[in-house]
Amino acid sequence: MAETAAHPASVTQDPFIKSLLMLIRAHDSSGAWETVTDDEIIDPFIVTKEQRREIPLIGDPDPDILWRLELFYNCIGMAIEKRTGHACAPIMKINHEGWGRMLLTAGRLVVINAYLRDLHRFGFDSVEAMIDKAAKIIEAGVTAIEAFPQVAATAA
Amino acid sequence: MAETAAHPASVTQDPFIKSLLMLIRAHDSSGAWETVTDDEIIDPFIVTKEQRREIPLIGDPDPDILWRLELFYNCIGMAIEKRTGHACAPIMKINHEGWGRMLLTAGRLVVINAYLRDLHRFGFDSVEAMIDKAAKIIEAGVTAIEAFPQVAATAA
Repeated sequence: MAETAAHPASVTQDPFIKSLLMLIRAHDSSGAWETVTDDEIIDPFIVTKEQRREIPLIGDPDPDILWRLELFYNCIGMAIEKRTGHACAPIMKINHEGWGRMLLTAGRLVVINAYLRDLHRFGFDSVEAMIDKAAKIIEAGVTAIEAFPQVAATAA
Repeated sequence: MAETAAHPASVTQDPFIKSLLMLIRAHDSSGAWETVTDDEIIDPFIVTKEQRREIPLIGDPDPDILWRLELFYNCIGMAIEKRTGHACAPIMKINHEGWGRMLLTAGRLVVINAYLRDLHRFGFDSVEAMIDKAAKIIEAGVTAIEAFPQVAATAA
């Protein structure tokens, strides 16, 4: 892990980052992370362009990366549910070369359909970039549900 | 593999079984299965109740089983595409305990949403049972597309 730069409080108070922290800390059943700061938990999500270039695209992607990817999209699903009232179920299929597909579905509606690649290098330039990216995906999901509310409400 | 009982020609002439055979034989790039009969190829899909009871639900499910499961649903996707003109993309996520979820999506529509379990024992009582099961799933998929044709036609 690289050195952890303290993020401004405004960033860790962002609703998306807050729910991501909550989701991650929920995995800490033994209390091992109680002394780990929010910054340290968010840090592995931040991979700068320079760091990214140094990560080779060979071998299976690190399971921790896939775990972070799932958390990121679970958090997006939670945010979409908060805004629309429709629960979003995630399904992710990543092959061993580090590319694949992530879906969030609500009822019979495909809310988010993301094709993912180069997942060995999954990460964001900065916390702000992560928040921006999440906001865009959430917006797209909310728009999809607003376009087809009846489909989202139909059990599949 | 159990002894292979010859299935009546009417069964191997069934359109679903024919397209399943075609999909499977398409994997045979080296010609190794040229002398393998259609019956022998279909046989592993047939698991009687007695055989099923003897298969323990421990350890990871056999990759060959997951391969057959994917083929079965790919074939269903092909049949739905043939009837409706909408291509169906499969996405499958099975955990190591042998249960999970299989989706077929067309555009923004979830055409098939199948929760799967006990996959160590995946198979059908008979070829006829497999054809019946496939026909029911295909019918459900076609019905979903007919209910929301606009959603199936919207790119996700």
